[in-house]
Amino acid sequence: NEPPGPIVVTEIPGPQSRKLQSDLDAIQNASMVQFFCDYDVSRGNYLADVDGNVMLDLFTQISSLPLGYNHPAMTSVLKDPSNWSTFVNRPALGYFPPANWVNRLQSALVSVAPPGMKHVQTMACGSCSVEHGLKALFLKYARDRREGRLYTQEEIDSCMWNQPPGSPKLTVLSFHNGLHGRTMACLGLTHSKWQMKIDMPAPDWPIARFPALRYPLEDYVSENTAEEHSCLAEVEERIDAWNRKEMPVAAVVVEPIQAEGGDNHATAAFFQVLRDITKKRNIGLLIDEVQTGCGPTGLFWAHEHFRLSDTPDVVTFSKKMLTGGFYCKKSFKPIESNRIFNTWVGDPSKVLLLEAVVKVIREQGLVERTRVTGEYLLTGLRQMQDKYPGILTKARGLGTFCAIDFHNTESRDSLVFKLRQRGVHTGTCGSVTLRLRPSLIFQTRHVDLFLEHFQTVLETM
Amino acid sequence: NEPPGPIVVTEIPGPQSRKLQSDLDAIQNASMVQFFCDYDVSRGNYLADVDGNVMLDLFTQISSLPLGYNHPAMTSVLKDPSNWSTFVNRPALGYFPPANWVNRLQSALVSVAPPGMKHVQTMACGSCSVEHGLKALFLKYARDRREGRLYTQEEIDSCMWNQPPGSPKLTVLSFHNGLHGRTMACLGLTHSKWQMKIDMPAPDWPIARFPALRYPLEDYVSENTAEEHSCLAEVEERIDAWNRKEMPVAAVVVEPIQAEGGDNHATAAFFQVLRDITKKRNIGLLIDEVQTGCGPTGLFWAHEHFRLSDTPDVVTFSKKMLTGGFYCKKSFKPIESNRIFNTWVGDPSKVLLLEAVVKVIREQGLVERTRVTGEYLLTGLRQMQDKYPGILTKARGLGTFCAIDFHNTESRDSLVFKLRQRGVHTGTCGSVTLRLRPSLIFQTRHVDLFLEHFQTVLETM
Ligand code: FES
Repeated sequence: NEPPGPIVVTEIPGPQSRKLQSDLDAIQNASMVQFFCDYDVSRGNYLADVDGNVMLDLFTQISSLPLGYNHPAMTSVLKDPSNWSTFVNRPALGYFPPANWVNRLQSALVSVAPPGMKHVQTMACGSCSVEHGLKALFLKYARDRREGRLYTQEEIDSCMWNQPPGSPKLTVLSFHNGLHGRTMACLGLTHSKWQMKIDMPAPDWPIARFPALRYPLEDYVSENTAEEHSCLAEVEERIDAWNRKEMPVAAVVVEPIQAEGGDNHATAAFFQVLRDITKKRNIGLLIDEVQTGCGPTGLFWAHEHFRLSDTPDVVTFSKKMLTGGFYCKKSFKPIESNRIFNTWVGDPSKVLLLEAVVKVIREQGLVERTRVTGEYLLTGLRQMQDKYPGILTKARGLGTFCAIDFHNTESRDSLVFKLRQRGVHTGTCGSVTLRLRPSLIFQTRHVDLFLEHFQTVLETM
Repeated sequence: NEPPGPIVVTEIPGPQSRKLQSDLDAIQNASMVQFFCDYDVSRGNYLADVDGNVMLDLFTQISSLPLGYNHPAMTSVLKDPSNWSTFVNRPALGYFPPANWVNRLQSALVSVAPPGMKHVQTMACGSCSVEHGLKALFLKYARDRREGRLYTQEEIDSCMWNQPPGSPKLTVLSFHNGLHGRTMACLGLTHSKWQMKIDMPAPDWPIARFPALRYPLEDYVSENTAEEHSCLAEVEERIDAWNRKEMPVAAVVVEPIQAEGGDNHATAAFFQVLRDITKKRNIGLLIDEVQTGCGPTGLFWAHEHFRLSDTPDVVTFSKKMLTGGFYCKKSFKPIESNRIFNTWVGDPSKVLLLEAVVKVIREQGLVERTRVTGEYLLTGLRQMQDKYPGILTKARGLGTFCAIDFHNTESRDSLVFKLRQRGVHTGTCGSVTLRLRPSLIFQTRHVDLFLEHFQTVLETM
C-alpha cells in the first residue's frame, strides 16, 4: 500500500505548509519547520505533506521511525482495546509500575540488549537518557572513590548548596562535533553547531578532537591511523589536564558515528583503544546510540561493529527505540535509591509499541536486511561519486546509515532542495554532508528510486 | 463505575507486588517501587493493584492524572481510528508538524494559557520544560546585554569549547527546598532531598531561603511578613553577590507552592515582590507549575492566586497537562533559530489527549469544582488538627492541593502506611508532611471517605 513512487503536485513546502508555518509562528518560533505533514495518509517509506505531495523518505523524522509510517503492526497495537488503558493512564513508573511491566521490559528491551548488558532503565527522550546515564556513571565513580565509607555530614550538607564535597567537581570528556542533546549536561557535551550553544552557560568539561578520516579509507591507512592516535593522545592529555585542575574526568561520552556533526566515522581500532584507556583509568564509557541504535547500521547496536575488549559501561538509546533509556553493565546499575528517578521515568505506551516493533524486526530479519540494503546503497553512492568526482566525495556508511559529502555547503543544500522538489526527502548534517537515514523497511527498490533521482539532480549541477 | 469505597484483600504491597518488585530489581534498581498496579481495572479515583486491592487515590501518580483512571473522554480518543496515526507516527515536531498542529495547540494549550501569555512551546517532561524554559530566559538576557550587536567570532568560537564569552557564566537563582527536576540544570535548582544530589556535579548557582511560614497564618501575620522580607532580602543579596563574582543572575526559578520540599506556601505579597525585584533588575522570572498547573489549586494556574503586577516571563508545565512545555511572554519568545529544539520537542499524541481533558475540565467546571471540594477538604483537615493537636499541625492548601504536617517523620510515615492498609493511598513530601494530590474529579463524597479513614487511623495513634 505504498505508492509506486513520489508524487509531486506543488513546490515543497507548498502553499498550505507556508500558511500553517506562519500561523504556527504566531504561537512559537517556527523557523525550523520544513513542511507540514499528513500523517494519516503517509505509508511505509512515503511521507505525505499537507499540499498533496508524497515523498520517498530517507530522513524519517530525524531517523526516529523504525518501521516507516503507519506500519500495520503498530496500528494493531492501537486497534486492540486491551491496550488502551496503557495510553490513557500514564503511571509514575518508578513508584507504581503496571502489572506486566517486567515482562514488557524483557521482551521489548532486555531481549535486544547489547551483548554483555542485562540492565536497563527507561527514560523518555535522548536527552534524559544521556543525563541519567551520566548520573549512573557519576554514582559509580563516587562510590569507588569513597571506598565503602559512608556519606559524611559535610557531603550531605554541601550538596544541598551545590557545593563540594557533596557536589563534586566531576567532569565528562566529549568530542568536538559530537551531539548528545540539548539539556544542560547534554548541551555541554554537544559541539556540532554554535547556534545550539551560544549564550547558554556550559560546564567547563574537556573536549577532544574526533578523528577526521580521509577517504577512500584504503588509500589513507597510515594517515588515518596517525589521525586516530593523535585524537586518542588528546583524550589522555585532556584527562590529565582536568585531573590536574582537580576536576577529574568521571566519564567519556561518544557516538559510534557522529551523526549531527557530519556522519564522522572512526575505525574499530579507535574505539577499542578508547575502551581500553577508560577502563585502565577507571573512567566510565558511555556510548550514545540514540541515533545509531535499533538496527540501521546493520547490527542492532552500532558499537557491536567495534568488537570492544569489554562492553561499554552505559549505552543510551531513543529515537527508533520509541522510548528513551539506557543499558548498563551490572557494576554500573545504581545501588543507591532515589538517584535515577523522576515522575514518569519513561512511558509504558512507548514500550508497548516497541514490543511490537521488535517482534517485526526479528520475524522479518530487518536488521540483516538493512545490512544488505545498505551495501547496495553504499555501492550506488560510490558509483555516483566515481561519476561526479567534482561534486561528491567520501561516500561512507554502515548498513543504510549512509552519507556522502559535497565540496561545499551550497551544492549540498541545492541538491537536497532539488531532490525534495522531485519528491525525495533527505537530510543534512555537518556543513557539507548529505545524511541518509531511511527506516528499517527501506529496500533495494527504494534505493534504485533514490539513486535515479539523485543522478538526475546531479546531472543538472 | 467507581467502586463505593476501597477494597482491601491483602497487605499493601501484597505478595504479587513483592514478587514483581524483586523480578524488576534484577533488571534495574526497583527500590522506589511502592506496589504494582492493574491499570485496566482502575477507575476514576480508585487505583487497583495486582493483588486485588482497590485504593482511593489521593496521590494520583505524583499528581499527574487530571481525570483519574480510564476516564471515558480519554478512552474515546483511543477508540477513534482517525486518531491512531497520531500514536504510531511520532514526528520530529520542530521540522515536520502534523496538519492539525496549530489548531491543536490552540485548543489544548493556548486556550488555557496563563493570563497575559499567548506563546507556548511543547516539550516532553517537566525537566526538559524547565531546561528549555531557562534557555529562553538566557537567550533574552544575552540578547538584551548584546544591545543589538552581532555575535562576535570570539563568541562563536569559544562556545564550541564551552568557554566564555560564547558560553557566558550566567546563573539562575533558586530556593532551598525547591524541586525542579533531575537533569543537570534542573538538579542544580533542586534542594529538597540530599539523596537526589549527592555525588552529582552541580553548577555554582545562588540559592535563597524560601519562607517558612508559621501556622495558623492569622496568628503570625507580623512574624510571617518578617520571614518573607528576610527571604526576599536574601534573594537580593545573593543576586548582588553572584553579580560581584561576575556570574550574573539571568533568571529566578520558583514553584508557586514548593511541593516535594514539603508543600511550603508563601503569601501573594512574597511573589509580588519577587516579580517586582526581578523585573526591576531585568532578570527573568520562571514560575514552575509542573505540579501546580492544570487546576488543582482551584485556579487553572496557581500563580493566578498571586495577582502579580506583571505576568511571569516563563511558566513551565507537565504532569496533569500530559505534555511538558512552557508558556512565555511575547518578549521571551525565542527569535533566534535552532535554540529551543530537539528531535521530538513534545508528542502530538499527548496534546491530543490533553485536548480531550481540557474539554472535560471546561464543560464540567472541574477547576471551580476543585475549589469547592478543596475548601471542604481543608475544613476537614483543620477539624482533624483541632481534634488531634498532639499529632497534626499546619493544615494548609489551595483547592485540593492540600497538606498537613505531623510532629515527626515516624508518625507521618506510620499514618501513610496505615491509611494504605485501609485502601487509602496518599503521598508524602518534606520530612513531616502528608501530601494530598487527588485528581480534578475528586468530590466531597471522596473527601468524606478520606476523612473517615484518616480519623480512624488517627484514633489508633
Ligand atoms: S528530558 Fe527527556 S523527556 Fe524531558
